[in-house]
Amino acid sequence: MALQSFIEVEPDSHFPIQNLPYGVFKPEPASVARPGVAIGEYVLDLSEISKAGLFNGPILKDSDCFLQPNLNKFLSLGRPAWKEARDMLQKLLSSNEATLRDNANLRQKSLVPMGKVEMLLPMEIGDYTDFFSSMHHAKNCGTIFRGPANAVPANCIFHLQVYRVVPYFRFHLPIAYHGRASSVVISGTDIVRPRGQFAPSGNSPPPFGPSQKLDFELEMAAVVGPGNELGKPIDVNEAADHIFGVMLMNDWSARDIQAWEYVPLGPFLGKSFGTTLSPWIVTLDALEPFACDSPKQDPQPLPYLAEKISKNYDISLEVQIKPAGKEDSCVVTRSNFKYLYWTLTQQLAHHTINGCNLRSGDLLGTGTISGPEPESLGCLLELTWNGQKPLSLDGFTRKFLEDGDEVTFTGFCKGNGYTVGFGTCSGKIVPSTP
Amino acid sequence: MALQSFIEVEPDSHFPIQNLPYGVFKPEPASVARPGVAIGEYVLDLSEISKAGLFNGPILKDSDCFLQPNLNKFLSLGRPAWKEARDMLQKLLSSNEATLRDNANLRQKSLVPMGKVEMLLPMEIGDYTDFFSSMHHAKNCGTIFRGPANAVPANCIFHLQVYRVVPYFRFHLPIAYHGRASSVVISGTDIVRPRGQFAPSGNSPPPFGPSQKLDFELEMAAVVGPGNELGKPIDVNEAADHIFGVMLMNDWSARDIQAWEYVPLGPFLGKSFGTTLSPWIVTLDALEPFACDSPKQDPQPLPYLAEKISKNYDISLEVQIKPAGKEDSCVVTRSNFKYLYWTLTQQLAHHTINGCNLRSGDLLGTGTISGPEPESLGCLLELTWNGQKPLSLDGFTRKFLEDGDEVTFTGFCKGNGYTVGFGTCSGKIVPSTP
Repeated sequence: MALQSFIEVEPDSHFPIQNLPYGVFKPEPASVARPGVAIGEYVLDLSEISKAGLFNGPILKDSDCFLQPNLNKFLSLGRPAWKEARDMLQKLLSSNEATLRDNANLRQKSLVPMGKVEMLLPMEIGDYTDFFSSMHHAKNCGTIFRGPANAVPANCIFHLQVYRVVPYFRFHLPIAYHGRASSVVISGTDIVRPRGQFAPSGNSPPPFGPSQKLDFELEMAAVVGPGNELGKPIDVNEAADHIFGVMLMNDWSARDIQAWEYVPLGPFLGKSFGTTLSPWIVTLDALEPFACDSPKQDPQPLPYLAEKISKNYDISLEVQIKPAGKEDSCVVTRSNFKYLYWTLTQQLAHHTINGCNLRSGDLLGTGTISGPEPESLGCLLELTWNGQKPLSLDGFTRKFLEDGDEVTFTGFCKGNGYTVGFGTCSGKIVPSTP
Repeated sequence: MALQSFIEVEPDSHFPIQNLPYGVFKPEPASVARPGVAIGEYVLDLSEISKAGLFNGPILKDSDCFLQPNLNKFLSLGRPAWKEARDMLQKLLSSNEATLRDNANLRQKSLVPMGKVEMLLPMEIGDYTDFFSSMHHAKNCGTIFRGPANAVPANCIFHLQVYRVVPYFRFHLPIAYHGRASSVVISGTDIVRPRGQFAPSGNSPPPFGPSQKLDFELEMAAVVGPGNELGKPIDVNEAADHIFGVMLMNDWSARDIQAWEYVPLGPFLGKSFGTTLSPWIVTLDALEPFACDSPKQDPQPLPYLAEKISKNYDISLEVQIKPAGKEDSCVVTRSNFKYLYWTLTQQLAHHTINGCNLRSGDLLGTGTISGPEPESLGCLLELTWNGQKPLSLDGFTRKFLEDGDEVTFTGFCKGNGYTVGFGTCSGKIVPSTP
């Protein structure tokens, strides 16, 4: 029988004792921020558990990592500390352990109803990198902009010529760009529709105004644990020890701003107006039961990207839109983390192969996660074929996002009698300020 | 007669009383980091000046901004605080002011010989952005890769088609990409030659190894003072109040890694292995006497980029290379900040027009500063025409950088009887670690 907590957890809750994702919260508006784990409908306050002396293992017993306003210090301690914390917390919360269960005072101090807390970004993000790891996404964008014949060529080899762009997926390397760390926000933060320049017609000046092609991008993001020294790459077979866990991420995109600006330096203002993260980091340990094979990689990756064990995770993902004034959300797409071509560990190893240093709390986005089917595409650009085929939803249509639209991502893994979930990642579009 | 300090300053020193650039240093290896200003051959320890109660103006008298290990807090206070500090320091250091001049004990505590200190990065960099503001650089790269006929087309309009690259300079907007903040290092830090993938010939797998086209990029970078709230753009005519000062920056680039990876997401591993900053931030106030007209902008910029006063600065820039085992450096190029097409204030206004938030200490690189002449090009890619025309230097030739090469930038403005300089920004290439 599955491990159970003395705290009642509904069968479809995202937060059973098998999950225990980490976040940072304030129990009251005036409180200081502190780390917590989600359990059922509660947040367990790790600062209280720490002050009560319950982290008594060899690594954590003298550590103040749970008395910090973010998780960076805990992240930097690495997998042995994470394992020690998880083992202790699973024991503490289990139905047959009296320490917390039978201590009303400690329960009262440390278990806060989830509906009452304010969730904050769980870590200080030094750098945020966004990869491009979905072959389906690359192929669709290629087809939209260049036609099916040129979308993914047989040899998958880029033309040598610099300054010549081919929208092919990169089968030799998980390409990426640096995103904006300052505008990463927590789920629930409104997103102001960005203004900017768009491509002109003919010789007229570029039009300027609020984006008319505002989009979501369904992504997940890995959170870096211990970093590496500048000049010292991380081996792909050791990369998993540098990844603490995974979050949901909406990489909001203004397609019209992006299309006009992005050559030859990549995405900039089309993305940097906001990126939304879910509050909870689900650990790789909690995801381990849902590991699955990664797609067969052909051509073979170069030796520095060749892994002894190559893992994806079976995580169901869903996007809903709720327009202003509507009661109900409408499902727009369903995808899965397992569709990604490059693994998280390959992304991390590639990121450091040139000696680039990662730091604890860095964020590595996967890029848009599109599946192979029309219903599994990860953004409106693909779902509506760049606005050419509006989506018919429940009483409304959408080419791109409208003011007042609330976009909500969710993700979960179905276990035997329990669910390991990510909660939600949501944001509402508010009008541009003139 | 020009203002003079009681501290002797050689006529060609970069650090007369007219300059007073800010940095962060340790007087002894075991000391805590603290802010200082450069004056002649000395660093004035601002933590000691602050503790002595000499910052007694209305804004700074109760502030602990000079007791911090970086300048971020001082940067966030804005121009009135910067002016108060500058006025006080110029008075304190002037030849006819007794307070410090005649106080042997305070002089001994607060004036540290520059040769004895360790300089550190002066600010914590939340995000580092690199612009592409030199028309000459864009034109040369275009010509190198596509031939002169296509380098800058008459209408300067980008093709609308997404995923089609044209190497033209962007006359409608100062484009940029997000660089890597973690690998920004202080002058004097060795740079490990990065390894990576390069473009393959035909259908063979991409070659992998140490970069064979390692380059410098001659840049300067603005340091952000007060930031802005997410969703609230900064007006171009108020942008100068958000810029504290300017530094020298070497945006090291691996051209072979860059050429293979950068489509369609822009530069990533070809840049993120290291970026070197000079230790001193020269303030806009110190640069004001060297303001000059910016290039005429045609077509007219859109209203959000149209400035009432459009300013460049006349800053002479020079790059030297010293190969391993040689006594002397050899000048490789001479350029000038004034060649930039887009002003710092236009860059900053463009950066925030979509609502993107800047934070104090953010770094805005100008991009490579190439002048119009063959001797004023800002990187080896241009100077050697992508390695096709090796440079003949003093007893050696260079296509790209070799192991052991030390690259040093310097920059200065010539005043009437004094020099406002940036000191140096240098780094040495060390071999890849296998």
